[in-house]
Amino acid sequence: MTIERIEHRACFGGWQDVYRHRSTVLGCAMNFAVYLPPQAAEPGAKLPVLYWLSGLTCTEQNFITKAGAQRYAAEHGVVIVAPDTSPRGDDVADAEGYDLGKGAGFYVNATQEPWAAHYRMHDYVAEELPALVEANFPVTDARAISGHSMGGHGALTLALRNPGRYRSVSAFSPIVAPTQVPWGQKAFGAYLSEDREAWKQYDATELVKSAAERLPLLIDQGDDDEFLHAQLKPELFASAADAAGYPLTLRLQPGYDHSYYFIASFIGEHIAHHAAALKA
Amino acid sequence: MTIERIEHRACFGGWQDVYRHRSTVLGCAMNFAVYLPPQAAEPGAKLPVLYWLSGLTCTEQNFITKAGAQRYAAEHGVVIVAPDTSPRGDDVADAEGYDLGKGAGFYVNATQEPWAAHYRMHDYVAEELPALVEANFPVTDARAISGHSMGGHGALTLALRNPGRYRSVSAFSPIVAPTQVPWGQKAFGAYLSEDREAWKQYDATELVKSAAERLPLLIDQGDDDEFLHAQLKPELFASAADAAGYPLTLRLQPGYDHSYYFIASFIGEHIAHHAAALKA
Repeated sequence: MTIERIEHRACFGGWQDVYRHRSTVLGCAMNFAVYLPPQAAEPGAKLPVLYWLSGLTCTEQNFITKAGAQRYAAEHGVVIVAPDTSPRGDDVADAEGYDLGKGAGFYVNATQEPWAAHYRMHDYVAEELPALVEANFPVTDARAISGHSMGGHGALTLALRNPGRYRSVSAFSPIVAPTQVPWGQKAFGAYLSEDREAWKQYDATELVKSAAERLPLLIDQGDDDEFLHAQLKPELFASAADAAGYPLTLRLQPGYDHSYYFIASFIGEHIAHHAAALKA
Repeated sequence: MTIERIEHRACFGGWQDVYRHRSTVLGCAMNFAVYLPPQAAEPGAKLPVLYWLSGLTCTEQNFITKAGAQRYAAEHGVVIVAPDTSPRGDDVADAEGYDLGKGAGFYVNATQEPWAAHYRMHDYVAEELPALVEANFPVTDARAISGHSMGGHGALTLALRNPGRYRSVSAFSPIVAPTQVPWGQKAFGAYLSEDREAWKQYDATELVKSAAERLPLLIDQGDDDEFLHAQLKPELFASAADAAGYPLTLRLQPGYDHSYYFIASFIGEHIAHHAAALKA
């Protein structure tokens, strides 16, 4: 497996890079961003990694240009890896609308045509990408995961589905119950068939009921988020976590919306949350 | 003069807003961004203002989405105002290329056709915009000014041309000697005629020779900036400032390029530089 560096920019004493590689799991070329804090340049350095999953319509660029996360990653000595949100390329299936197909992989392994050939973002993020990162960068296998909106759904479900893989999890404005909201129902219906039983394996509110481990879990949600009541519904996850005895810090942030201004305002606290778990 | 709020987003405890108004000086509708830190909401608050001038191709959006400045403005209790970089609209003259016309106002008052009717960015930023801001927001008349590239040129020239108007000035990767580099020669030739004497009034390296006041002045320049040797040439300004006895802190930052990753890495130190002068 070869990777090619396509961007390399000094940032907060470290380097904000973007790499391109051929993904075996997805069957296409993929970009991913890597922030290497200044500590990565020290001889023999091995740093923990935070995986960031972005939301609908995003690429690997949105988080690295808008969240301001590099400052905090540099403070804590954490590497941040941010993949794209779906397979890409001319031979990858797509659909009309921003919420299905390219830019909308939903971090699942699709079983239905025309999606099954490439849309395997769960396995890409959970397995192929960490293997690649751990083979090519000065990192340990201490991993944390976070994300925004569709990527918050990705972070929660990947953490809940893969015990032992992550040390901590967090999310901004996550889709917590995709089987109960329009975005999730549209995507899961296409990627996973109309068999609603098959949807539950990618629904954080379902998965938390039988979670095999307890990770430090932080969710921030703006109370002026335009998608709060129709698509996000954090109360569904909070109830299920509470019933399951899964400790959750859910903060409703007054006045904040769904944008990167919200993420930027609290990403420092999320990185501190992960750094504490990664270095414990 | 009426202003209309067209964006309003919670950010670091304050508000990142964008306003639209009809500019008398420019003869067109203009957007400008205002960050109001949390201190602005306190009863009777009156805060100082940092004006940020962006570079070629930018609008009022680039700085507010990419620089991560809001965190530091919130820490220091400073309002940040970021205007667009040129007049806008269907009846405003434009040109082929990114470095003349819309997105490339160069913070001068044009005297030549077809530019003279609208391209009066010097007077807009130095006079009309502060009057508007000071009439409509909880601010004092303590002003500072900063910018990037073409906007760094704008910050330096506005500060040097308008003694008494600003308390401090700084720049990232500024065009310091527009009369001696291709970007400036093309723009000044169009906006100001081919009379090179007329160019000197907007050239920081010329203006510093006869500066009427000494402001705290900080310049950061990446040493891996792709425009450093052909367009920026900070050594020309440093020599002129030194000869004139104008104190200058010029920092060559190793490895950094011309991008917002560079600005984000040092904007906190620039805001601290301005806050110290604004509150002195």
